[in-house]
Amino acid sequence: MRSSAIVLASRPTGAPGPEHFRTEAIEINEPHEGEVLLRVLYLSLDPYMRGRMSDAKSYAKPVPVGGIMEGETVCEVTQSGSPEFKPGDIVRAMTGWCTHAVMDAKRVRHVNTYGAPISTALGVLGMPGFTAYGGMKVIGQPRASETVVVAAASGPVGSLVGQLAMRAGARAVGIAGGKDKCDYVKDALRFDAVVDHRSADFVSELSRACPDGVDVYFENVGGHVWDAVFPLLNQYARVPVCGLIAQYNDPGKGEQDRLPATMSAILRRSLLLRGFINTEFVERYYEAFQQEIGPLVASAQIKYREDIVDGLENAPDAFIGMLSGSNFGKLLVRISH
Amino acid sequence: MRSSAIVLASRPTGAPGPEHFRTEAIEINEPHEGEVLLRVLYLSLDPYMRGRMSDAKSYAKPVPVGGIMEGETVCEVTQSGSPEFKPGDIVRAMTGWCTHAVMDAKRVRHVNTYGAPISTALGVLGMPGFTAYGGMKVIGQPRASETVVVAAASGPVGSLVGQLAMRAGARAVGIAGGKDKCDYVKDALRFDAVVDHRSADFVSELSRACPDGVDVYFENVGGHVWDAVFPLLNQYARVPVCGLIAQYNDPGKGEQDRLPATMSAILRRSLLLRGFINTEFVERYYEAFQQEIGPLVASAQIKYREDIVDGLENAPDAFIGMLSGSNFGKLLVRISH
Repeated sequence: MRSSAIVLASRPTGAPGPEHFRTEAIEINEPHEGEVLLRVLYLSLDPYMRGRMSDAKSYAKPVPVGGIMEGETVCEVTQSGSPEFKPGDIVRAMTGWCTHAVMDAKRVRHVNTYGAPISTALGVLGMPGFTAYGGMKVIGQPRASETVVVAAASGPVGSLVGQLAMRAGARAVGIAGGKDKCDYVKDALRFDAVVDHRSADFVSELSRACPDGVDVYFENVGGHVWDAVFPLLNQYARVPVCGLIAQYNDPGKGEQDRLPATMSAILRRSLLLRGFINTEFVERYYEAFQQEIGPLVASAQIKYREDIVDGLENAPDAFIGMLSGSNFGKLLVRISH
Repeated sequence: MRSSAIVLASRPTGAPGPEHFRTEAIEINEPHEGEVLLRVLYLSLDPYMRGRMSDAKSYAKPVPVGGIMEGETVCEVTQSGSPEFKPGDIVRAMTGWCTHAVMDAKRVRHVNTYGAPISTALGVLGMPGFTAYGGMKVIGQPRASETVVVAAASGPVGSLVGQLAMRAGARAVGIAGGKDKCDYVKDALRFDAVVDHRSADFVSELSRACPDGVDVYFENVGGHVWDAVFPLLNQYARVPVCGLIAQYNDPGKGEQDRLPATMSAILRRSLLLRGFINTEFVERYYEAFQQEIGPLVASAQIKYREDIVDGLENAPDAFIGMLSGSNFGKLLVRISH
């Protein structure tokens, strides 16, 4: 049978455009023993995918030119060669950007969302949620009365970072772009404060929103948000670094070298900076994450928002838009009903 | 009675010179109840003192202009108003750069060097040694077969960092300036490799000395050593940041902004950077440090080297020279016999 798939047509040097993607029809076999045939329901689009389009040294191999774009999906099992899965089971797998895939059953996981919609297995109850959870649990470690700042606060990672901070008794200060997102962060997510990074007065507004400085800055954007937060970091502040979306397309062309001042501040204020990807914490914390956060999502004590685009063919445009912040909530592509 | 003291005459903007110091005679009282009169034997000179001469935001207050230069000393108690101390006791205290001082007994500590010379209470068994110990214990955490790099490897912090790394089964790679220091690091301290940072071929020599990359870089110098080590840092490398002596006098004038590439590397390689000062770890680890390292120093299983200058009046020149790397071993001023 045939799957439709989106492949990397060429490597972008700056911002990716539609020309860097191509749709292909791909012949797939019946599943052998130990394999399952999957019909893709939802594809998750995430900032890390921009990294996979480049061949710079990274923690993960790049997608080869001509290869299927990498990505996690929620799928329905349609044929199974494994006793672990039966047709109709809902699972998640790294099938990539496609409509159907045959996968080794060992690389497929059952989905349990504790009654929440299955799409949350790609968002607040999936890797984005676990990124927030792992980064806060292991690196951020917010304590009562501390101030936690996170950007992209209406997004799937940032929204959980802030909600976890508040559950730990800390003040959550969100940064988001535009009135709609800011309103959502303040009114629906109930962050203690929110600042619009597009405001002309962003730097001083952020400073006013953090009268006691910043103890945890969950870094998922970089760029001018980093510049605004950095001077506010308190002694012993922790900075989990999980993304730098603002600089993925801009490797730096400033005229002043900010590194010496940054290192001085790290020394003088005993700062902790730690890069991470969530996979590092899976073995130790994934089960605890699901058990702790799943029921809170199902009972709406933890809130989330999705931005669902229909049709695999619209995935490249949705992804390109996400890199410039045009989505609002966890970006998913509905591939099939 | 009178004490002789060295005060901060004015704040340097670049490298300190003799004009930034002044010797003064200071009248001191007899010790009241709860105080002790101390005769200073050894004064420790340390890079952090450069920071105290500036009024930039820091973890510690600057020395006021006209104030006695801050510093730790080993002293003999000559009069005591405290039941905790008797004349003849050897103690350490933050008396500053002076010959005699009256101190609150609560701020004075008995010295126990397990049979090693009392001057080691200011070096390998004092704050410099504890800086190495705390930074490695809490942040560096070297494991067997890993590679640990440290600069100023012949100095009181670096020499212990490397020896602790080797005791943990890691490879110790030292960086030092000049043949004498390099020979000492290799032959006396028995580091696995040593590289001269003055070599024209320093960058490639360091790379060859670390064929498996770098897992722990104990940062105590900054500058061009950082530039050479940074590309070698492995996935999950740890960087305890305890000093940036090379940039204390040079806040950065590079034309390229290295911060975005640095942040990218922190993210891509899951690096940990953590600034610290040893006082943060005193409560939890100082006793363990003394008990573990004291006997090893006394029995010469851990080696150290001192550079002793005679006379308080020579302290400024010795300090100025230290900032440019002219001392060899822990720099002490012998104030009195």
